[in-house]
Amino acid sequence: MRATIIHGAGDIRVETVPDPQLRAPTDAVVRVVRACICGSDLWPYWSMPASEQGERIGHEFLGVVEDLGSEVSGLAKGDLVVAPFVWADNTCEFCQEGLQTSCRHGGMWGRNGVDGGQGEAVRVPQAQGTLVKLPVAEDSALLSSLLSLSDVFPTGYHCAHTAGVNPRTTVTVIGDGAVGLSAVLSAKRLGAERIILMGHHKDRTDLGLEFGATDIVAERSEQGVEKVRELTGGDGTHRVLECVGLREAIETAFDVVRDGGVVSRVGAPQYPEVPMGFGVFMRNVTLTGGVAPARAYIDELLPDVLEGEIQPGRVFDRTVGLDEVSDGYRAMADRSALKVLVRP
Amino acid sequence: MRATIIHGAGDIRVETVPDPQLRAPTDAVVRVVRACICGSDLWPYWSMPASEQGERIGHEFLGVVEDLGSEVSGLAKGDLVVAPFVWADNTCEFCQEGLQTSCRHGGMWGRNGVDGGQGEAVRVPQAQGTLVKLPVAEDSALLSSLLSLSDVFPTGYHCAHTAGVNPRTTVTVIGDGAVGLSAVLSAKRLGAERIILMGHHKDRTDLGLEFGATDIVAERSEQGVEKVRELTGGDGTHRVLECVGLREAIETAFDVVRDGGVVSRVGAPQYPEVPMGFGVFMRNVTLTGGVAPARAYIDELLPDVLEGEIQPGRVFDRTVGLDEVSDGYRAMADRSALKVLVRP
Repeated sequence: MRATIIHGAGDIRVETVPDPQLRAPTDAVVRVVRACICGSDLWPYWSMPASEQGERIGHEFLGVVEDLGSEVSGLAKGDLVVAPFVWADNTCEFCQEGLQTSCRHGGMWGRNGVDGGQGEAVRVPQAQGTLVKLPVAEDSALLSSLLSLSDVFPTGYHCAHTAGVNPRTTVTVIGDGAVGLSAVLSAKRLGAERIILMGHHKDRTDLGLEFGATDIVAERSEQGVEKVRELTGGDGTHRVLECVGLREAIETAFDVVRDGGVVSRVGAPQYPEVPMGFGVFMRNVTLTGGVAPARAYIDELLPDVLEGEIQPGRVFDRTVGLDEVSDGYRAMADRSALKVLVRP
Repeated sequence: MRATIIHGAGDIRVETVPDPQLRAPTDAVVRVVRACICGSDLWPYWSMPASEQGERIGHEFLGVVEDLGSEVSGLAKGDLVVAPFVWADNTCEFCQEGLQTSCRHGGMWGRNGVDGGQGEAVRVPQAQGTLVKLPVAEDSALLSSLLSLSDVFPTGYHCAHTAGVNPRTTVTVIGDGAVGLSAVLSAKRLGAERIILMGHHKDRTDLGLEFGATDIVAERSEQGVEKVRELTGGDGTHRVLECVGLREAIETAFDVVRDGGVVSRVGAPQYPEVPMGFGVFMRNVTLTGGVAPARAYIDELLPDVLEGEIQPGRVFDRTVGLDEVSDGYRAMADRSALKVLVRP
């Protein structure tokens, strides 16, 4: 089969790799119907040292079950399924607590002999715990939004959920990327009535307004902080959803959060330390969030997507075939695309 | 009157200062019956640059109301009262949310013309919001525990409370100082059944066992982390209460917390940055806590103290007169005393 392999910064290739086959009785093989490119795929795309062998990449996909191990129940060949971006048994204590990203028997796609998601097919470990059946056909108009359940939408939702967003909290979302917009949609779903979106790409913040943002702050750094303070009587907002992962973004987060408030972060941190010294301590600000256990949220979010109440798939603004996946990376890297869908 | 003034590192003097008088109709004047020395008083005691003028110091006291401004209601001359370590109006939005440390009209003792607590008397701004009446006489045997409501006990309680300690959470407390021991007592009060206390002063950890600790880890740094991991099947505890404020302590906290867990800190941070990069992010660890709004907890904790159900005042292990306050600082600095009570 064909699959995407990253050989270093800027070097994305589609190559022929062995067809996936069951290795353990808990495995499944899924033919990929839709995959996509994640903002976090751009970190290696920008910085990975050159490698002749390269690494499989991609961790978001939905597809059709083609083969099933003997110990997988609840799924059948031909089922359309979505996979969260971390695979997990969904039965260990961590999974039962809704922290499937810390599953005792789980792991990441594209690592340790596990396939990446940007290919024609994927061997799925712990298939019963990992895969969620989708009650639609593979030509459904809902596929984009259903695919977003794999990562980007639950990641935004994790941000809003762990922050404790509710109808009584004002919210700032930092970042108008696909995760930031998903966080806006999530904050709205959790009842927030005031959602300030910090972002300076007008086409993206326009979608943010449709998703529920009430104010857009296009200014950056100190000017942006000043604007949010101005919009909130000087206090900042109760909750800040940091959806970027850069040092500047987390600094801004602490500058716009209200005393006693919560900063939640879901952008993979590109910084080793967080500026939470004496000043933040005196203001009783909490930092929460982390890598999103997408699996924990799919059951809750799926009905809203199926009923068309929310359309998180609107973050996809370009579609490429598998052979054009390199173009997709380029488009996301130069920000001419918000989020790229891949049809193998 | 006589009051304590710090003139620089190691230089504590008791000097004659003007008697406190009402300045605003919201003030009261309180004759101090008991004061004490805080671990945080030791930071300037160790590091303050020499100053001829010096600064008033001390922020924990209880005493008798001697004079009252015309706008103070609910209090009468002769009432025994305790003051939290931050004064506040107790009516603004922050106060109503239980964050009196961010009161719009509040402030710190010993700053900007406000008296410090280690003296014969104190002018109390925002007296109606700040002071809490104590229904005992000034020779009550409960005075030590009642004085602990001013700071040390609510600080430990804030740590356990913001961490979300409950009967289903395992807890590690870092630090066997008076705040750490108060955090143990607080975790016990909130129902924790497993409380691991990290500390290496046997007389202090012995009191920790009486307060509710189930395990003592005397090893430090990596050995201490290993021990906690060993005691918890490799996972760490759900909650970690960091009651020290040094970089090493906060690092240890992240090393002993369970995935998905919460680190809460109440030791005034002597570090500008917190090591919460990619690794902590992937484990979904939250950092909360901050300066304790003691006033928010006094109403809840006072009945237990009055009924003798808890005896947080047991952290006091030495008493000095006002003229000996310098000895008290020295004893706390060289760790020959856990916490020093001052009788003016």
